[in-house]
Amino acid sequence: MKNNCLNVAVLGGSGYTGGELLRILTQHPRVQITIVTADKSVGLPVNQVFPHLESFCGLTFESIDLARITKLADLVFLALPHTRSMELVAQCYKKKKHVIDLSADYRLHDPQVYEQWYNTAHTHASLLKKAVYGLPELHRSRMAKATLIAVPGCYPTAAILQLAPLVAKGLIRLDSIIIDAKSGVSGAGRSPALTYHFPEAHESVLAYKIGAHRHTPEIEQELNGLAPRPIRKQSPHAFPLLFSPHLVPMNRGILSTAYARLRQPLHTTDLQNVYRSFYKDERFIRLRTDSTTISPNHVRGTNFCDLGIFADPRTHSVITVSAIDNLVKGAAGQAVQAMNILMGFPEGTGLTSPGAFP
Amino acid sequence: MKNNCLNVAVLGGSGYTGGELLRILTQHPRVQITIVTADKSVGLPVNQVFPHLESFCGLTFESIDLARITKLADLVFLALPHTRSMELVAQCYKKKKHVIDLSADYRLHDPQVYEQWYNTAHTHASLLKKAVYGLPELHRSRMAKATLIAVPGCYPTAAILQLAPLVAKGLIRLDSIIIDAKSGVSGAGRSPALTYHFPEAHESVLAYKIGAHRHTPEIEQELNGLAPRPIRKQSPHAFPLLFSPHLVPMNRGILSTAYARLRQPLHTTDLQNVYRSFYKDERFIRLRTDSTTISPNHVRGTNFCDLGIFADPRTHSVITVSAIDNLVKGAAGQAVQAMNILMGFPEGTGLTSPGAFP
Amino acid sequence: MKNNCLNVAVLGGSGYTGGELLRILTQHPRVQITIVTADKSVGLPVNQVFPHLESFCGLTFESIDLARITKLADLVFLALPHTRSMELVAQCYKKKKHVIDLSADYRLHDPQVYEQWYNTAHTHASLLKKAVYGLPELHRSRMAKATLIAVPGCYPTAAILQLAPLVAKGLIRLDSIIIDAKSGVSGAGRSPALTYHFPEAHESVLAYKIGAHRHTPEIEQELNGLAPRPIRKQSPHAFPLLFSPHLVPMNRGILSTAYARLRQPLHTTDLQNVYRSFYKDERFIRLRTDSTTISPNHVRGTNFCDLGIFADPRTHSVITVSAIDNLVKGAAGQAVQAMNILMGFPEGTGLTSPGAFP
Amino acid sequence: MKNNCLNVAVLGGSGYTGGELLRILTQHPRVQITIVTADKSVGLPVNQVFPHLESFCGLTFESIDLARITKLADLVFLALPHTRSMELVAQCYKKKKHVIDLSADYRLHDPQVYEQWYNTAHTHASLLKKAVYGLPELHRSRMAKATLIAVPGCYPTAAILQLAPLVAKGLIRLDSIIIDAKSGVSGAGRSPALTYHFPEAHESVLAYKIGAHRHTPEIEQELNGLAPRPIRKQSPHAFPLLFSPHLVPMNRGILSTAYARLRQPLHTTDLQNVYRSFYKDERFIRLRTDSTTISPNHVRGTNFCDLGIFADPRTHSVITVSAIDNLVKGAAGQAVQAMNILMGFPEGTGLTSPGAFP
Repeated sequence: MKNNCLNVAVLGGSGYTGGELLRILTQHPRVQITIVTADKSVGLPVNQVFPHLESFCGLTFESIDLARITKLADLVFLALPHTRSMELVAQCYKKKKHVIDLSADYRLHDPQVYEQWYNTAHTHASLLKKAVYGLPELHRSRMAKATLIAVPGCYPTAAILQLAPLVAKGLIRLDSIIIDAKSGVSGAGRSPALTYHFPEAHESVLAYKIGAHRHTPEIEQELNGLAPRPIRKQSPHAFPLLFSPHLVPMNRGILSTAYARLRQPLHTTDLQNVYRSFYKDERFIRLRTDSTTISPNHVRGTNFCDLGIFADPRTHSVITVSAIDNLVKGAAGQAVQAMNILMGFPEGTGLTSPGAFP
Repeated sequence: MKNNCLNVAVLGGSGYTGGELLRILTQHPRVQITIVTADKSVGLPVNQVFPHLESFCGLTFESIDLARITKLADLVFLALPHTRSMELVAQCYKKKKHVIDLSADYRLHDPQVYEQWYNTAHTHASLLKKAVYGLPELHRSRMAKATLIAVPGCYPTAAILQLAPLVAKGLIRLDSIIIDAKSGVSGAGRSPALTYHFPEAHESVLAYKIGAHRHTPEIEQELNGLAPRPIRKQSPHAFPLLFSPHLVPMNRGILSTAYARLRQPLHTTDLQNVYRSFYKDERFIRLRTDSTTISPNHVRGTNFCDLGIFADPRTHSVITVSAIDNLVKGAAGQAVQAMNILMGFPEGTGLTSPGAFP
Repeated sequence: MKNNCLNVAVLGGSGYTGGELLRILTQHPRVQITIVTADKSVGLPVNQVFPHLESFCGLTFESIDLARITKLADLVFLALPHTRSMELVAQCYKKKKHVIDLSADYRLHDPQVYEQWYNTAHTHASLLKKAVYGLPELHRSRMAKATLIAVPGCYPTAAILQLAPLVAKGLIRLDSIIIDAKSGVSGAGRSPALTYHFPEAHESVLAYKIGAHRHTPEIEQELNGLAPRPIRKQSPHAFPLLFSPHLVPMNRGILSTAYARLRQPLHTTDLQNVYRSFYKDERFIRLRTDSTTISPNHVRGTNFCDLGIFADPRTHSVITVSAIDNLVKGAAGQAVQAMNILMGFPEGTGLTSPGAFP
Repeated sequence: MKNNCLNVAVLGGSGYTGGELLRILTQHPRVQITIVTADKSVGLPVNQVFPHLESFCGLTFESIDLARITKLADLVFLALPHTRSMELVAQCYKKKKHVIDLSADYRLHDPQVYEQWYNTAHTHASLLKKAVYGLPELHRSRMAKATLIAVPGCYPTAAILQLAPLVAKGLIRLDSIIIDAKSGVSGAGRSPALTYHFPEAHESVLAYKIGAHRHTPEIEQELNGLAPRPIRKQSPHAFPLLFSPHLVPMNRGILSTAYARLRQPLHTTDLQNVYRSFYKDERFIRLRTDSTTISPNHVRGTNFCDLGIFADPRTHSVITVSAIDNLVKGAAGQAVQAMNILMGFPEGTGLTSPGAFP
């Protein structure tokens, strides 16, 4: 037992994101996990559901009991499916708990956009205004004052970070952005289904939900928010981009390749300078000049986003490549980073180990 | 020993493409392989270099002896590195042999473009005019009359087939094409190198040679050639597109995702009709309406190109996805298809087995 | 439509073994598939359940209707779960159909042994005497006269073939056999489950059902049957061996490593001679002297069993290594080989393509 | 810069084991890496050779300069090939440095056995007596007083730990041990070669060096040393066992399955009690009752050895299964554990993070 710790709850702890939250939080010197919930695994020791956590976590999965949660925890992580989170976040918020929600329910500012993409009305639209989109590299200071943080999706983390400097500096045509992202299979969660059955997913690459993936409006909202006033759209979602996700045969990681047309001719070195300056002092961004060193293999298990930016003068285009671990910087790690910011802990606490390669 | 067969030579038979040529040709009812060459494996039985071919091929790798080759074979396949092929093709051609070259040396019509991308002068520029680009779906009739066929590269096969109907029908803006391709590791050949060392390539995806891959000018040449007169460029290479290859952790296969802006609004079903009509009677093209069924897993070991076409009305874009086996439709299978056309054999001879899934 | 063909039914055609039966049978020159059944996929075209079979199979999955099956087919393949096959085989047999059963229901001669390992009584024990264990290398002549053939399990195929010469020649102590087998994930079938969920099975190897796998009694029965009279056991199952299966992260294939103590000192070359002689003229057995060339990678998609035999003089032991494709020689291919023998077709018909490597 | 730290050198830091040493040591609170050497990478920043270590290690690879090493470091790790280590260890030892050697050069007590297996004479045979075999679970107290520790090989770590209780308690016949081990490809090191070229190793499993792998005598030496006096052999290597390694398509990890005949009938629960007692208080041993939870997937990146023990009453045998990360408990982690013991640091320092699953 650690002393003087922040007591935290993890709701939805039996999925891959939940497992990563438990892994990182058990190593966090300022935190004590006091309760962890699950659905199907209620009553099972964490050790049994996650054999890799044996000797690190003595808890047993419980069902969700809000009274018990609010009594035992001062901060609540929710790693639940969207719509499932919606009401629980509101209740925890009402009980004045710090809430870090890893679902999509509080990421979009506009309830109509939520409804349009998630096919269901948002039942706590007023709370959307309180939620801060938890990407520290863009919203650190607002996160520090927030009560409710919506952790970005995995794809949006990779996509927004790779495009933010270009958009913020007005260097590209906003209507030209195409994001071709490649994700490992853990991004689909821990529930077995034919698409993720080993023999189907192995020796395979496939495109899915082309132009229709629910992470699209998050990326649009954040990039539009970054755009310089003259080219920003009135409606936060009047700026459509094309996002095209792919499933690749690896356990973890996203490699995101984004394309856009430059508004004026620029060299690779110019672009690299823009990125270097934009991400100055960002400890979890590592800029790379050789695209072959940007790979999930080098960020696995870590909170890093490795990034490269390249000009293609032949087509007046810019290409950016980013790699993250979808379960860490794309979910649990970023959630812990959000907690650190929220609670005033040093931002990298619990997140500073290098990954194990290969 | 088969009777009344075409005698063929395979130059460069010890790489993955060579191995596939041997696999397919040993099963071809109209062909007898009479000689197979290699560099480092000279003197070794094919069986030893390719244990999977044991009981199918009794030959031994020889060094290249042109007199012997032209004596023993009426048709020569060259699966050699570029520049290595250049002179040998010319010599076989001179000896009035049918030549099917799998290297890049005779794919580009313009020797200056060759020099620009391959950093070396083309020493047989006049022969370039005789060579036919061996993509049957575009050039079948010219291939039937050819003596020298240059088999397309693996990426160009996937890319040209997926974009040809859009370009030929003038449906997209030619300056808007972006091709994001994902290849299995066998595409890099059989010579060990750090990038393809198992622990480096596994659990990894990476982008390489962004905007600079040598397959780019092939794609440009062929698509420009297809464009309707009014929008076609004077110079066959005045039409730059952005081609961005990626390495993914699988043995075989390419998934190519291509993006372009529509010149006029079209629905997915309109586009599908265009493709259905364009590829009518093409036995090796299978059109798919669900992108998740387009995957290397479903074409492995076969000469098929599985294809899908999708409109994204939000961004006025079209997305096409194609899957091929890089070593079959992307190399050896297409070479045999070329031979069938050249020799007047039924086009699918030796190429009509379904793949083994999974 | 092929003419003068044997009409066959495939019951249970939507699993991986069923898919392989369809793949091989559509290419078989003497066979016409007239009906294919499934459970959950009833009403779906084969093409939709197996996109790789598009353009090869125009059938639609039906539910099992015995009258229709016996009317449309002269030979019935059953690729159904054990117990599910038991009654259907009996009914087809009664209707005087040729039956090739890929389940475990008719492999064991002794109904008590069946009951002991499968925890259920055998309801057609008398039919067990009619069934021939369909391993051609051991029972070819009896198979040729059979009406009901029980196709061996995948592990037993690899294990029996690798040990048969040693046992038949009395070279090893029967009580010393240990089989450590490694299987790809397709061996577990096509139904998703957590163990076979990509992120769980990838980057993993695990042992399961150690000493308790249901393929054990098959191996014991067949090896005991081979043993020279003086050392053979009275009861076919009085000869226990240790079989230990493992799951490895690949799609297809089994590598089986078996160990036994030699009854007298023998060199590797002595043992190789025994094997060469025992498997003389067996077209699907390829003997190898270098263990590193025995791998699922070299038999994928084929009906081969690649085999090696090695002495370890330090421990007076013998080690044999065998590789098969679990879905071909371990299931569908062997079933077609059985059909060929049963119907008097040349034994290799439809099974003579080399595999695609890598 | 950390204060009051032990200064350490890492010789041979550019391979996978070297990379893991750097990863672990940069996180170790009591250690400062002052020099790291390599061969081919001399002059390159560690960051460039290991992009995953960017922002963790500012060093540059140097060539080996013994004067400089002994000046800058008080403890030297050698992650060099065998024979390469032999002389360097002797020189560091002579300079009164603490030496932790990860090669095979100082693991075997008997120089003749070394010569027999490594085909070269040991040039510092007298130093073998000073070296302690660095398996903490067996030799902790001797390690604490040592100057030179020879870190066990990866396979021996898995094999000795899984068999030690059985041997030490005299429960099995020593002449019956068979070890069938399965290793990920990183075990072969970082130098590219055809066997480890991605397309060759993927979708493959193979056995190599059956009965002839150099890790065999280590296992024999240590197990014989553990055997109760009456059954121990005079010569430490008069006790031959059969060790059979396999290569499986994963990056990291070993799963070792060992078999032996019981000297008296015992139940699984009896055996589990023996193990529980033998490994009481061992923080890096986790005993498992379900073999399917013992997998490299659950120990990746960690210093754990997960272990299971199972009786097979049918064959009077015992089966044990163990899983380690070959680069951590099988190399770099165990080396750091050795350092901790040697220097009197808490044994788990720098080694107590759970692995990232999946």
